[in-house]
Amino acid sequence: MEKKVLMTGFDAFEGERVNPALETVKILNGYQEKGVHIVAVEIPTVFRASIKKLEEAIKEENPDVVICVGQGGGRTHITPERVAINVDDARIPDNEGNQPIDEAIVKNGPVAYWSTLPIKRIVKNLRESGIPAEVSNSAGTFVCNHLFYGLMHYLHDNAPDVRGGFIHIPYLPEQTVNKHAPSMALETIVEGLKIAAITAALEPEDIKESGGAIH
Amino acid sequence: MEKKVLMTGFDAFEGERVNPALETVKILNGYQEKGVHIVAVEIPTVFRASIKKLEEAIKEENPDVVICVGQGGGRTHITPERVAINVDDARIPDNEGNQPIDEAIVKNGPVAYWSTLPIKRIVKNLRESGIPAEVSNSAGTFVCNHLFYGLMHYLHDNAPDVRGGFIHIPYLPEQTVNKHAPSMALETIVEGLKIAAITAALEPEDIKESGGAIH
Amino acid sequence: MEKKVLMTGFDAFEGERVNPALETVKILNGYQEKGVHIVAVEIPTVFRASIKKLEEAIKEENPDVVICVGQGGGRTHITPERVAINVDDARIPDNEGNQPIDEAIVKNGPVAYWSTLPIKRIVKNLRESGIPAEVSNSAGTFVCNHLFYGLMHYLHDNAPDVRGGFIHIPYLPEQTVNKHAPSMALETIVEGLKIAAITAALEPEDIKESGGAIH
Amino acid sequence: MEKKVLMTGFDAFEGERVNPALETVKILNGYQEKGVHIVAVEIPTVFRASIKKLEEAIKEENPDVVICVGQGGGRTHITPERVAINVDDARIPDNEGNQPIDEAIVKNGPVAYWSTLPIKRIVKNLRESGIPAEVSNSAGTFVCNHLFYGLMHYLHDNAPDVRGGFIHIPYLPEQTVNKHAPSMALETIVEGLKIAAITAALEPEDIKESGGAIH
Repeated sequence: MEKKVLMTGFDAFEGERVNPALETVKILNGYQEKGVHIVAVEIPTVFRASIKKLEEAIKEENPDVVICVGQGGGRTHITPERVAINVDDARIPDNEGNQPIDEAIVKNGPVAYWSTLPIKRIVKNLRESGIPAEVSNSAGTFVCNHLFYGLMHYLHDNAPDVRGGFIHIPYLPEQTVNKHAPSMALETIVEGLKIAAITAALEPEDIKESGGAIH
Repeated sequence: MEKKVLMTGFDAFEGERVNPALETVKILNGYQEKGVHIVAVEIPTVFRASIKKLEEAIKEENPDVVICVGQGGGRTHITPERVAINVDDARIPDNEGNQPIDEAIVKNGPVAYWSTLPIKRIVKNLRESGIPAEVSNSAGTFVCNHLFYGLMHYLHDNAPDVRGGFIHIPYLPEQTVNKHAPSMALETIVEGLKIAAITAALEPEDIKESGGAIH
Repeated sequence: MEKKVLMTGFDAFEGERVNPALETVKILNGYQEKGVHIVAVEIPTVFRASIKKLEEAIKEENPDVVICVGQGGGRTHITPERVAINVDDARIPDNEGNQPIDEAIVKNGPVAYWSTLPIKRIVKNLRESGIPAEVSNSAGTFVCNHLFYGLMHYLHDNAPDVRGGFIHIPYLPEQTVNKHAPSMALETIVEGLKIAAITAALEPEDIKESGGAIH
Repeated sequence: MEKKVLMTGFDAFEGERVNPALETVKILNGYQEKGVHIVAVEIPTVFRASIKKLEEAIKEENPDVVICVGQGGGRTHITPERVAINVDDARIPDNEGNQPIDEAIVKNGPVAYWSTLPIKRIVKNLRESGIPAEVSNSAGTFVCNHLFYGLMHYLHDNAPDVRGGFIHIPYLPEQTVNKHAPSMALETIVEGLKIAAITAALEPEDIKESGGAIH
């Protein structure tokens, strides 16, 4: 039976001309392998509107897995996020000028939701393919975490059988020609997200493998 | 009316000969200023035993505020933690050889607890004193986060009026003579934790001030 | 008239199984474009022997340009080196166990030699192709700097019309799956070194363009 | 017989309100210990004018040792520099708006000068006092390296018995309250520079001790 993976990518923000997340998921849109089918949707880097767009896409696509992808500028590895927290604390305005500070994403919502993706297994499978990956314990407090929390809250209430989570990816090389930051080739990211999607769709139970941080 | 602040510091781990947290709180033990009284207690860097020791100290001292302090090796700033998460995922063994992986700290406990310290106000007051400080959105998944979660869970169930939280501090200079990592002078950390204790005791309501992370 | 570029790559060291420099120049060996012809040679990561092997290759190949390439583990960008200094100061042993400390590479040689590659132009051309690049002001004090100094000293004395220099490159992604360090895709490095070779062969005069470091 | 050490510190630049180098040497001015006497002078962060001021101070003070000190923003350790190179390549304008690019400091001067301070011994003595220190292999290409090269060139031609060199120091804590960078307490830097001055004056011969960089 075919499995459908909905992947989302944000549009560019913070003065960038591209967002590696959007570039990647556009390429992956329509990809099929091993009975896994990826559909991709663009999400605005905007508080509230991002969650609304995601919920509409979930209703329309009825996926088995949802993987939201975001630019983790400065990161060296592909990093599946472990946990989404119920707070917006924006260091910069979003793409419509909103800058909430210490506001709950969902009033009276739980403090946090775990990712229900098999994050350790994704990291393991990526590494075995030679792709740098590690678990991240914080998705920040900007629109990425906002969407991640919104996703998990929606799935919790409306589609508990659908697995979901968030993956941060590095800058593309072209974004770092004038800044001193690490990057990852588009091809590597695309390959990495393929593996993540197939892993999440076909091997949904996670493994126990050390992936923690000391602090 | 006097306010009592219980501060805790871990013993050394991961091959270090000192723990800056313990060194600092030992100095602050007995400190009094502006009607705030600090009592300090040493905590073993051990899963479970750390929480047990903390709970005993809380029962004995009956404090108004609890601030647990830990070494954040590699950090440049004093970093009040925002959130404790319900997972142990140890990259290295603790001081008794335990290395839990992806285990809940409290079975069926909530995914996470917020710090109830005024973390933004602490950061602001530290900065105004010329001390580098910023909010952290992850306390990791080792004994520091473990104790932090245990603290918040205990207070939630047993002493909801007591505020509590966790602060990570940098290495001491002497710890970095042979490693390429940032450090902070003991005097600076001591002064910073004094300010944190007094702020938490006398200005418990937090302010809204941007302190987030993009990812 | 055809231009010949001799490129060299070291074998793996410091416990790595591959050296991105060697992987890259093996691919570039025999490459021809715009009348530029690349020949590649493997160099041992060994003091003295590396220079000997390089001198033999120069005598045999009689190139117009020599570009030595080395792994700059931890770097995020392709970094043409500005200057070679006359000292060996090895933090680790080389591949034959030599670990010279504060010894001159060439007794009574000059303190340093400039690269005679058009390093600013190489950086500019790489950036215009979307490849992260920046000038480096230190090639370290291990075998990379040793070979670089040996090269410039040899060219200075024996072949002053031949341009030469050194380029450090990041780890490959597969080298960083288990370490927290930046990497660059093999394809990106190969493309970058092609551009460097063609630039050095066809546009040997450098441009003046800010590329310095404050400290 | 008394030894005189001339120490210099730059004024603030790049938007900073203080320069840790100037703050430190002002405190050390007049300091005496073990027959070593420190005199300090302020140097403008300006190409040319900095060297002129330094030469005047050397003529006036007739020191045994000259140690120029500069802010190495972003560094974690006190870092004696190994080598000065004959180039100005300014990424930002100096305090009078000069921004030379790839210009020789001394026309037809040698490519580089070694520090004649006992840099390994200084690092060793600092570490034994618990102060983070390591050798640096590049002083950059801005006014710090400019002054360092100017110093060594002057001593080489006019006072070959006088030892000289350059030490970069981290930001002060107060400079990093709003930036994510490491710092070092003023007291630690002052103590470190005292040790450096006394070491350079009383133990001028360096030791051989590994202090190199792989790249």
